[in-house]
Formats: sequence, structure tokens, C-alpha cells
Amino acid sequence: MFSTEIGREVRADGGMADITAEVQAAVSAGKLKEGVVVLFAVGSTAALSTIEFEPGLQKDFPQALERVAPRHGNYAHHETWHDDNGSGHVKATLVGPSLSVPFREGKLALGTWQQIVLINFDTQDRERKVAVQVIGV
Amino acid sequence: MFSTEIGREVRADGGMADITAEVQAAVSAGKLKEGVVVLFAVGSTAALSTIEFEPGLQKDFPQALERVAPRHGNYAHHETWHDDNGSGHVKATLVGPSLSVPFREGKLALGTWQQIVLINFDTQDRERKVAVQVIGV
Amino acid sequence: MFSTEIGREVRADGGMADITAEVQAAVSAGKLKEGVVVLFAVGSTAALSTIEFEPGLQKDFPQALERVAPRHGNYAHHETWHDDNGSGHVKATLVGPSLSVPFREGKLALGTWQQIVLINFDTQDRERKVAVQVIGV
Repeated sequence: MFSTEIGREVRADGGMADITAEVQAAVSAGKLKEGVVVLFAVGSTAALSTIEFEPGLQKDFPQALERVAPRHGNYAHHETWHDDNGSGHVKATLVGPSLSVPFREGKLALGTWQQIVLINFDTQDRERKVAVQVIGV
Repeated sequence: MFSTEIGREVRADGGMADITAEVQAAVSAGKLKEGVVVLFAVGSTAALSTIEFEPGLQKDFPQALERVAPRHGNYAHHETWHDDNGSGHVKATLVGPSLSVPFREGKLALGTWQQIVLINFDTQDRERKVAVQVIGV
Repeated sequence: MFSTEIGREVRADGGMADITAEVQAAVSAGKLKEGVVVLFAVGSTAALSTIEFEPGLQKDFPQALERVAPRHGNYAHHETWHDDNGSGHVKATLVGPSLSVPFREGKLALGTWQQIVLINFDTQDRERKVAVQVIGV
């Protein structure tokens, strides 16, 4: 059992940061051979998933989500707080804040073209945080 | 290791219940300091995520999902069972049934405006259940 | 703690395989009574969730995702690699690669009509792999 936190500045409106190296470093720091690392994006406008981290998909993914929750649509959330990030809240809840990745012989069980990404759906660039829990033997 | 179950009556068609207090109570009952709580929505028309639990977003989130799977659309599922909840099945599968949240010093690592929600996508109000597993030291 | 891998041939463009029996077999092989099984779809065009596994929803779910990321839409990803599976990458990232299911007395805590599905969003039929980690006592 080993816990830590990852912090990364991420651009607004669907900006993504590849945090694979930080997650692998956390697993290595825990000195466990076999188990899972549980990741959790702290805050209601951030999310985690995996993607092939290349410039094309960094555009395609947030753009596709615009079909579900357009950035400049009408949101009841805006009336509650006179806020402008209703779209970002909806997207973050949909993608989800938690991700669990197994590791074997201390190495994350990712595919060759599969990276772990932290996504910022808020309307401003922000430092986003990820709580990290390594569980194993 | 500590396991329990949470049950909550939740309204139909995207109704949400804030179960943060129940999840925190489960973690406290397990008397562990550091680890993760794994939550799983039992049933194929329920889902779990986090959201800023305020009245605006409780409308915005289910409304946005209508763009993906409209409540009164045509679903092959209806032909299989003469059922009316195809939209709810699709939404529940998309949002997903599992959520894992780390805790530190016995306290869930949530953001200030981030609550854990249990969503009922079925077409009738129902008691929904969540299997809870607390893992840690 | 017990780890294994599940491999299944799955059809292209949103084909789904019901892997519930394989996951239950992994839990049984681990000989643990109570805990969680963490599942992770290896590769950036595969995903995991739960669904009522019947022929209707096997059509409805991928069809609904077409509203978010149409198979024959334009994707910047195609320019990066001269590839044709941008839609599949977007869908896999949205549904997500990880799923955690608690078990009690060695039995998965699923609903009666709730199965675990491995989804292949790539544009060709493929053998997809799932890393499996059983954690418990």
C-alpha cells in the first residue's frame, strides 16, 4: 500500500495531460511487484481515461464531447452560480473521475499506444490533482 | 478489508442521489486510515459518478445524455422484451457502474464541490443498491 | 491477490463479448471470499462496462455512440496516422478501460440482468485482452 498525489497544469476546455510517466513512477516508488494503481481526479470538472496520446486525438476527443454538452449551450448550472462551466461539469461526470490500472513486475499493464490522461474540462487553465493509491504485493 | 451495501430510493429517468455521507460512513466503519473504497451500482440501469450536487446540474446532466440516447427513441431492446427503458440501459452502460475513491486519514479524497452520486436511469422510481468494498490499512 | 488475463476475439465497430463467466472463473481461481476484481482493457480502442447482454442492446449501445463520434466522420487522428479508426478511439476513451466489481462469498456482486462486457471499437475484428487483478481476503 503506497499513496501519493500527482499535480499537473492542464489547459482549459478539454486540455489533456499525459500522466503515464508520473503514474509509473508512483508504482515504482511503492516497490510492489503486482497489483493495481487506483487514480482519482480531485474536483468536479476533471476526469481520467486512457487514449493514444497524439495531437489528432487531443482535438478529436473534446470535439466529439461537444455533441453531448456544447460549451456555449444553456445550463441550469449557470443560473445556480452565475458560472460558465456547465458544459465542463457534464463532460467530467460523463467521462468519470476514477481509473484503475493493474501492474505486473512493477510495470503498468497498458497497451503500446495507450496512455493515461488527465483532462481539464473547466473553462480556465488549472492545476489539476490526482490522488494515487497503489495496492499490491 | 470491510464490505457493506448502500440502498437508496432514486427517482426515474436520471434521478440522482448524493451518497457521499453513506460512503464516508462506510469508510469510517471500516476503521482504516488509508486506502480506497470501491463502489459498484448493482443492476443494468444504474450508474455511479461524481458531480457538484446542486439543482442545476441535476437537470443538466440527464438532459445532455438525451442527446446520446433519447428517452423516446427507438431501441431494439424494446422489441426483445416489450420494455420501455432502452434509453436508460444505454445511458447506464455509458456512465458506468463502478467508481473507486481513495481516502487519507479516514477521509474521502474528494474535491470541495465534488459529491458521489448514484443515478437511476430506469423509467420508474426504484430502490437502487451499491456494493461497497473498503480496502486499505 | 491473484492475477490473470482474459483474451477474446471480438467483432469490429462496437462488437461486444460477454466475459462474465471468465471473470467469475478468475475470482474462483483466486480462492478469495470477499474483495474486488479489477479489470482493465488493454489497448486504446477497447473498453469495459456492464450491460444486459441481449441482442437488442448489442445493437442499441454502439448505435447511440454514433451520435457522439460517427464512424465516418472527420478525425484529426486520421491525418496523424492515415488511419480510419478515430471514431473508435473516441468511443473507447469515453466508455473507459477500467471496471471494478466486488465479490461476496466468492461470487460477483452483479445484478440479475447485468453482465460484464468487453467492447471492441476498432475497425477490424480483433483479439482483445483484459488484465485481471483479484484483491481480497
